[in-house]
Amino acid sequence: MPPGSVVFTGNQKVAKVQLHYLKYNATHFEEHTLDSHSEIVYHQPTAADVNWLDIRGIHDTDLIQQLGKIFELHPLILEAIVDTNQRPKFEEYEKGIFLIFKALSFDKQQKKIIPEQIALYFRNDLLITFQEDHTDIFTAIRQRLHTKKGKIRLRGADYLAYSLVDNLVDNYFQVLDQIEEEIEQLEDKLLESPDVNAKEAIHLLKKEVIRVRKAVSPLREAINLFSKSDSAFIAESTGIFIRNLYGNTIQIMDIADTYRDILNGLQDLYISEISFKMNQVMQVLTIITTIFVPLSFLVGLYGMNFDHMPELHYKYGYFVLLGIMFLIAIGLLIWFRRKKWL
Amino acid sequence: MPPGSVVFTGNQKVAKVQLHYLKYNATHFEEHTLDSHSEIVYHQPTAADVNWLDIRGIHDTDLIQQLGKIFELHPLILEAIVDTNQRPKFEEYEKGIFLIFKALSFDKQQKKIIPEQIALYFRNDLLITFQEDHTDIFTAIRQRLHTKKGKIRLRGADYLAYSLVDNLVDNYFQVLDQIEEEIEQLEDKLLESPDVNAKEAIHLLKKEVIRVRKAVSPLREAINLFSKSDSAFIAESTGIFIRNLYGNTIQIMDIADTYRDILNGLQDLYISEISFKMNQVMQVLTIITTIFVPLSFLVGLYGMNFDHMPELHYKYGYFVLLGIMFLIAIGLLIWFRRKKWL
Amino acid sequence: MPPGSVVFTGNQKVAKVQLHYLKYNATHFEEHTLDSHSEIVYHQPTAADVNWLDIRGIHDTDLIQQLGKIFELHPLILEAIVDTNQRPKFEEYEKGIFLIFKALSFDKQQKKIIPEQIALYFRNDLLITFQEDHTDIFTAIRQRLHTKKGKIRLRGADYLAYSLVDNLVDNYFQVLDQIEEEIEQLEDKLLESPDVNAKEAIHLLKKEVIRVRKAVSPLREAINLFSKSDSAFIAESTGIFIRNLYGNTIQIMDIADTYRDILNGLQDLYISEISFKMNQVMQVLTIITTIFVPLSFLVGLYGMNFDHMPELHYKYGYFVLLGIMFLIAIGLLIWFRRKKWL
Amino acid sequence: MPPGSVVFTGNQKVAKVQLHYLKYNATHFEEHTLDSHSEIVYHQPTAADVNWLDIRGIHDTDLIQQLGKIFELHPLILEAIVDTNQRPKFEEYEKGIFLIFKALSFDKQQKKIIPEQIALYFRNDLLITFQEDHTDIFTAIRQRLHTKKGKIRLRGADYLAYSLVDNLVDNYFQVLDQIEEEIEQLEDKLLESPDVNAKEAIHLLKKEVIRVRKAVSPLREAINLFSKSDSAFIAESTGIFIRNLYGNTIQIMDIADTYRDILNGLQDLYISEISFKMNQVMQVLTIITTIFVPLSFLVGLYGMNFDHMPELHYKYGYFVLLGIMFLIAIGLLIWFRRKKWL
Amino acid sequence: MPPGSVVFTGNQKVAKVQLHYLKYNATHFEEHTLDSHSEIVYHQPTAADVNWLDIRGIHDTDLIQQLGKIFELHPLILEAIVDTNQRPKFEEYEKGIFLIFKALSFDKQQKKIIPEQIALYFRNDLLITFQEDHTDIFTAIRQRLHTKKGKIRLRGADYLAYSLVDNLVDNYFQVLDQIEEEIEQLEDKLLESPDVNAKEAIHLLKKEVIRVRKAVSPLREAINLFSKSDSAFIAESTGIFIRNLYGNTIQIMDIADTYRDILNGLQDLYISEISFKMNQVMQVLTIITTIFVPLSFLVGLYGMNFDHMPELHYKYGYFVLLGIMFLIAIGLLIWFRRKKWL
Repeated sequence: MPPGSVVFTGNQKVAKVQLHYLKYNATHFEEHTLDSHSEIVYHQPTAADVNWLDIRGIHDTDLIQQLGKIFELHPLILEAIVDTNQRPKFEEYEKGIFLIFKALSFDKQQKKIIPEQIALYFRNDLLITFQEDHTDIFTAIRQRLHTKKGKIRLRGADYLAYSLVDNLVDNYFQVLDQIEEEIEQLEDKLLESPDVNAKEAIHLLKKEVIRVRKAVSPLREAINLFSKSDSAFIAESTGIFIRNLYGNTIQIMDIADTYRDILNGLQDLYISEISFKMNQVMQVLTIITTIFVPLSFLVGLYGMNFDHMPELHYKYGYFVLLGIMFLIAIGLLIWFRRKKWL
Repeated sequence: MPPGSVVFTGNQKVAKVQLHYLKYNATHFEEHTLDSHSEIVYHQPTAADVNWLDIRGIHDTDLIQQLGKIFELHPLILEAIVDTNQRPKFEEYEKGIFLIFKALSFDKQQKKIIPEQIALYFRNDLLITFQEDHTDIFTAIRQRLHTKKGKIRLRGADYLAYSLVDNLVDNYFQVLDQIEEEIEQLEDKLLESPDVNAKEAIHLLKKEVIRVRKAVSPLREAINLFSKSDSAFIAESTGIFIRNLYGNTIQIMDIADTYRDILNGLQDLYISEISFKMNQVMQVLTIITTIFVPLSFLVGLYGMNFDHMPELHYKYGYFVLLGIMFLIAIGLLIWFRRKKWL
Repeated sequence: MPPGSVVFTGNQKVAKVQLHYLKYNATHFEEHTLDSHSEIVYHQPTAADVNWLDIRGIHDTDLIQQLGKIFELHPLILEAIVDTNQRPKFEEYEKGIFLIFKALSFDKQQKKIIPEQIALYFRNDLLITFQEDHTDIFTAIRQRLHTKKGKIRLRGADYLAYSLVDNLVDNYFQVLDQIEEEIEQLEDKLLESPDVNAKEAIHLLKKEVIRVRKAVSPLREAINLFSKSDSAFIAESTGIFIRNLYGNTIQIMDIADTYRDILNGLQDLYISEISFKMNQVMQVLTIITTIFVPLSFLVGLYGMNFDHMPELHYKYGYFVLLGIMFLIAIGLLIWFRRKKWL
Repeated sequence: MPPGSVVFTGNQKVAKVQLHYLKYNATHFEEHTLDSHSEIVYHQPTAADVNWLDIRGIHDTDLIQQLGKIFELHPLILEAIVDTNQRPKFEEYEKGIFLIFKALSFDKQQKKIIPEQIALYFRNDLLITFQEDHTDIFTAIRQRLHTKKGKIRLRGADYLAYSLVDNLVDNYFQVLDQIEEEIEQLEDKLLESPDVNAKEAIHLLKKEVIRVRKAVSPLREAINLFSKSDSAFIAESTGIFIRNLYGNTIQIMDIADTYRDILNGLQDLYISEISFKMNQVMQVLTIITTIFVPLSFLVGLYGMNFDHMPELHYKYGYFVLLGIMFLIAIGLLIWFRRKKWL
Repeated sequence: MPPGSVVFTGNQKVAKVQLHYLKYNATHFEEHTLDSHSEIVYHQPTAADVNWLDIRGIHDTDLIQQLGKIFELHPLILEAIVDTNQRPKFEEYEKGIFLIFKALSFDKQQKKIIPEQIALYFRNDLLITFQEDHTDIFTAIRQRLHTKKGKIRLRGADYLAYSLVDNLVDNYFQVLDQIEEEIEQLEDKLLESPDVNAKEAIHLLKKEVIRVRKAVSPLREAINLFSKSDSAFIAESTGIFIRNLYGNTIQIMDIADTYRDILNGLQDLYISEISFKMNQVMQVLTIITTIFVPLSFLVGLYGMNFDHMPELHYKYGYFVLLGIMFLIAIGLLIWFRRKKWL
């Protein structure tokens, strides 16, 4: 396939692309849901405002190419938007800045992390976001815009971009919190009684933790480039905030590493528990055998055919022996109990 | 819930909020305990002094909002103060600087770390601290103010803020020391005789160590921002001290990692000890069986019904055999002893 | 052997050396495959264009020395090109810049990484690449040149060199992705049922991961030097891109470390699985023995030769005993089942 | 206890405090041992010389406070000197610089590290050291002063302070060397024959290694501050030397980590050795049992009471069976030998 | 022993000290082997050339002191040269620069690393090297000087010093390559069949890897100081090269760490293999026992003395039982085979 072709590589997650349009400045705020794609033309970005075009669904490559023409997006950007296998990256273009990230969410049922690719393009007056399905992952930001909370309404598209990335990074912390919850449940279950499914549960959680880590590692690099960029599209005041994000990604990796360590510890615990249980069973079985060993010897003894074995001819010999064997068995049992082997 | 709402999310730890008021400069020092909240108005900060308002108990959101109005705290700050699930952070606002930290204390009975959220807001002349319950965790600082120790009375609210954070970080070291004590007790107990509870004790201590580490990691980032801030509310001379704090947080993480390693080592030791003990039991049981194996063979031998078995007809055949079997048993016992298998 | 001698040290991978020649600038692009080596002279680099001479096959030392004369390559460079045991390096010479890297590809059949040494020399107008065999590993770059994609046609030989190295580094990511696939297959197989070959498969994959890591480590250093070079042959604008590459090599090492950890985890899992299975077999065997132990005791009991053993003379004594033994066996089986030992 | 009180917290290690007094410059050198404390007054520091007051024994708080008055030491310094639980630190005061370190020595008998707290105060013309007992740990420095070795006599009190700290850091390396010796002895013993005490020896050595690491970690931070200080009491030329020290502390931590890894490896080796030995014993025991199993079956066989068992009536049946059983036993023994199971 | 005394502390490795003398500039090159020590005087360094005095054998302290006088070496340098227990270091003196390093070589027979201490002193026109025995470890450099290869003939003594250190660092890589070869041989042997000696081989290789690591760690620090030195004896252009060396030492440490990890992995593999083999033996033994358990029960059954046991009186009862027992044994064997327990 020739490079530069705009081909959707993911699984289509939505039936119809949704387009939302926000326009705001310090004093003004409006929000639209666009019915047909052609409406975009009527909502040309206005320089005095920050214009946020929020596109949900990326399978419609015609629309993407149309957007590319309207907003002068570089062909490489269009190619990246619809390719869901992109590694997180930060790229500066002549006419704007382009970012690709993975948003993560934790599916409690399946105990799996579900990644969604988010593409983000901004220049001074405009920010376009592309996400794979309809769920609004930026509600918090939208509400801050509504309620004028913080300085977000006073700043430009670069700060909005930062806020969105910040929101994503915060989501990573939440996903880690949910994983921690799962780990703690597993821990409690394991300390109570280990069962065979725990092995797989541990293994799967470990995989999810590694998945978070692998997603954060290139994200950290991208944010690093983002924070060090001297692009004209990023105000210096925004730079400080972005640098802070870098520290957060390091924290995420640190937490992920900690979780992996904990899960390794759990696995060790599980293995030792299982083998401990098994050894205990073997011990009980061996003790049963051991108790019968001297008894079997005794019955063998009096099964011998020597001509002269006086005990055999005692009237109560048999019953005395039965009694002795009973005492031996009881004695051994008591001895094993005392030694805490039973 | 709309963002910006001041909603208490923690467990109420105190019945009534306490308010303490300190005012000092190089030559003057006064301390008040405010009876009712309305008294705050009578204690307006005076620019020539450092004013420290120390609030213990954060469940009274009305009071918090009242304070917000009096001291012009940003709504985001108010929201954070009463939300006990905040991650440690450092934030610069237009009118002051806001910090959130976790103070840790180690409950010797439960062997658990008890976190308490501390919020801290300061500007040039004023510092307000918010803590969850009544215990005075800043006694040392209060006394240094009283006794004019160090340069604390000569400096501003920023230095007081630093001193409080420094005090908190010192507490982390103390908590780690207490955990170390627990580890050493566990170690001694384990080297003497491993019992089954050790496994859980090790696991729980490991969790506490990880909890410290997780609390320090964002604290380190916050202190990093604190030390690099060029805010007008932080004197340059204070910056040097804060940078020093950063090194301390790294040390805490380092120590926590060391403890985790030690606890991992203890867990390995415990597992190997337990399995060693179990194997020893199995060995003893097997030795008992092994001693009887040749004896059982012999009694079986003379239980055979061959027509021609001369030994059976010897007068003392039976007793000689008993003697031989006794010697075999003794011989095997001695042999096992010599080989140190018993 | 005297240093400075141009001696081929690898395995000859191709029968005949292939020479490709590309010449391009912003507006112009031409590509030639040279039939005989002497043609090189007719394709002298032209200062207005970027000239890329792509040589595939390095066993022909005569050709290499001839090229050395034509393009004024330092004898040390010629020596390094034909020595396939070079560690990746970056070297500045008076008349150009020389780089040696390993290109990696993953052979799915053999599950082995196949390294190929790539040498790269460039000055302002010229770039020469040397690779061991014919496969075109730079197709993507060649196509970007063709299709004018990105800024590659607008920039000099230094940017082309960067693009090639970037392409190589991207390949490392792909190799790691393929290894990840192998790991996941192994994981699935292992969680289903562990077999003895898994041990070797894990070990071999671990070796491949370590091989990637060992190749990247000096590459990282070379790229570091590359990015920090103030050579006149590297435009400042290219430097930014190269620095980005450095972050990527760190990511590769990070991923390789993660994979090694995962493989270590798999090895632990495998070992525990195998020993678990073995212990289970031992348990079943021991249970069989344990069931017969009391039965054997009973038959021994009634094999004794006491004069007075009333049970022996009951009419149905034998059959009653058979019934009792049957019940004991069934009872033990049920007991073991209930305890989940069977 | 009110802060600022000078209270000795350690164990008194000496009966009487010793005071040594050195005074030197490039050309002049004199050394005194002060008989009574009051003599200090007669030895006021002279600005043209470097004056080194070396105090051994810190339990005499009266003396410490007297010194505090004479040399204008800050109350916080006095408090720290006599508190042996201080963490290593570097503090700048208005009138001088104060350092606290731990000197370590390795007690070969007890295989324990013995820490001693060293306090060090210096200004331009004066250096005071405080140590807990009488042993001269700075002999090397004293001799370099005597013999004019190096540049030490040409430089000020800051360089002397550096030299003392450097000497301490060198001691850490020596302590690590002694620990390495212990490790190697343990290794040799373990590879020869593992005994049960090894477990404890490994554990104790690991604790000592961790103790070194924990002592170095804050020392590194203190030296970091020392090297970055722009205090007027530290000449710029001395700074270079101190920075070098920082690298050394990192090396110490690195070596300590390596030793911990080695000790972990030894522990694994020990555990595997012990379990290997135990398994071997079990194997021998099981083999004994296994040899008798078919024999016991045979004697049981001919103990049966069938009416028609021809073998029983053969004249040499018994002896033939004895021979057969002997051959079976020998055969099994040879088979086990061949399989290397015995 | 008073410091500053020139005392040889190593094992004398050569009978007679050898002295080589090289003098070169861009156009001129001469090499001498000095017969007697007194000849040194006739070969005074000439300022226009680089003079390299190469001394092999350091036990002759008289010679060392004589050299010290001729070339104005500081007493501390003389002391260090003959003390073979020095840690690698870089020291600037007033009249020159002094370096101490360990050259490593791998003895294939003993599988041991053999360190040799190299001391190196240089000023603008002169470089003196001291090594313990006669083997020429700098052949490559000597040949580059001969053949004018690279820029070495155009540069000063500092570049020669750098080249020698670079050569040493390259040797470290070669030693690591040889260790890798050993590891791979061990790996192959282990995957084929684990034998008991492997444990010791792994342990010894691990020790050698740690030895390399411990030698590199201070070397790295020394090279760091070397690269950062602003000494007048080091040309700025040489600094770039030295900085590169620093990266190489980090790579060496990284490779050493990787090897240690691999060896740890091999040790785990070995332990699991050995225990797997042992368990397999136990399993076979237990299976033998298990097969005989029901048979022994049956023969016991028909050894009972009940009055009414009809089977005993059947004509072919005995032979039918033999047949049944044979079938049971075969049946169990087949069952165990099918279950892959045998």
